[in-house]
Amino acid sequence: MIELFYAPTPNGWKISIMLEECGLPYKVVPMQLGRGDQHKPEFLKLNPNGRMPAIVDHAPADGGGPLGIFESGAILIYLAEKTGKFMPAATRPRFEVMQWVMWQMAGLGPMLGQNGHFLLYAPEKIPYAIDRYTREAKRLYGVLDAQLAGRDAIAGDYSIADMACFPWIMTHKAQGISLDEFPNVKRWYALLRERPKLQAGLALGKEDRKPMDEQARKLLFGVDKPAHAEAGAAADAQGVQQQ
Amino acid sequence: MIELFYAPTPNGWKISIMLEECGLPYKVVPMQLGRGDQHKPEFLKLNPNGRMPAIVDHAPADGGGPLGIFESGAILIYLAEKTGKFMPAATRPRFEVMQWVMWQMAGLGPMLGQNGHFLLYAPEKIPYAIDRYTREAKRLYGVLDAQLAGRDAIAGDYSIADMACFPWIMTHKAQGISLDEFPNVKRWYALLRERPKLQAGLALGKEDRKPMDEQARKLLFGVDKPAHAEAGAAADAQGVQQQ
Repeated sequence: MIELFYAPTPNGWKISIMLEECGLPYKVVPMQLGRGDQHKPEFLKLNPNGRMPAIVDHAPADGGGPLGIFESGAILIYLAEKTGKFMPAATRPRFEVMQWVMWQMAGLGPMLGQNGHFLLYAPEKIPYAIDRYTREAKRLYGVLDAQLAGRDAIAGDYSIADMACFPWIMTHKAQGISLDEFPNVKRWYALLRERPKLQAGLALGKEDRKPMDEQARKLLFGVDKPAHAEAGAAADAQGVQQQ
Repeated sequence: MIELFYAPTPNGWKISIMLEECGLPYKVVPMQLGRGDQHKPEFLKLNPNGRMPAIVDHAPADGGGPLGIFESGAILIYLAEKTGKFMPAATRPRFEVMQWVMWQMAGLGPMLGQNGHFLLYAPEKIPYAIDRYTREAKRLYGVLDAQLAGRDAIAGDYSIADMACFPWIMTHKAQGISLDEFPNVKRWYALLRERPKLQAGLALGKEDRKPMDEQARKLLFGVDKPAHAEAGAAADAQGVQQQ
């Protein structure tokens, strides 16, 4: 059985989607990021970086004791290797998937995170930063759009590369991005949305999503007030809103 | 033989260090980032994201045609698996390494990149952005410092996790970070610096490093002037200076 330390945010959804798609038995340990669960000593033993998601596999392949893993990209690769699903074993298609997982981890995720922060959460509107990250977000969407031309998945068949990217593309409206500008991304996005297991992953902990209060904002971003506060807007810890 | 598309920057050094450490035969294709080599159509066929490093393995394990890989994290894993070096094969120590490679790719690299940009390259001093990324840089250094307590390497023996992090830690002075605050990082850094192969990797293309001119800055950052221009300062494409 796998324990999933989880909150319903883009990085959390990567793993809830993968666990659902794989059909592995798992148990959720819900994390309240606005309350600082990720900074508690017992969680820091699992992930010294203080970020969810993280997992503990209580039945690892090596037969040893419980195995903890952090960083969503590492967890995705672990689960793909454990199950033999959603990442081919052969070198060439395997690294096709691996490089796009890395692209999501190093580029799409962090840069959309910054874009969301300066668009939605920074207490002042900083045109230079907004312009910088909006340009980078659009560049990254353009790269993904070109990759998806004539393809239904990012790298070979539907894989952990798609599961890594999809939850971040879900935030497009909050990111100020229209999918109409990126028709291949739009087609891929609509296609993936139809997957029941992906939907099940996204639904996980939906009831726990609540508007971010002042204390949570201070804890997560070190800022007191959002740039523009919309009443009732459900906000996640990455500085983007759920669509 | 492996072709390495390379410029002497932190992400480039990860791979030049790994190739030297592995002892694999390789040939460098030098890239002039300030001239936009990374945006040329022939390079975009190898990496549609338009970033170095990238490799082409002309003797891949599957015996097929030349195999191209982009994203430094994917390349490190590929080379480790190809050679059986610097990442254990057994699940537990393998994922110990994998999660710290991901931490570098998703956290340390992108966030130090932003910190360097706002400290050194943004045309205006933006206190909010400088404070945001300085705090995050120090938090990440703190995480690494805690991980290195009582250890000489980040995850098990010296591995691709160390090679991924080291070149970014090299930029500490430009990042406004003193290693005196992080004694375990300081000890690890000094220890790794003694490795002849690591030094050989860092020396690769050193003669090509030149001060960034206005055109290069415009091309790389979309900005015309640095926040403070120091005459003769060698600057790299990630917005940090070589130490």
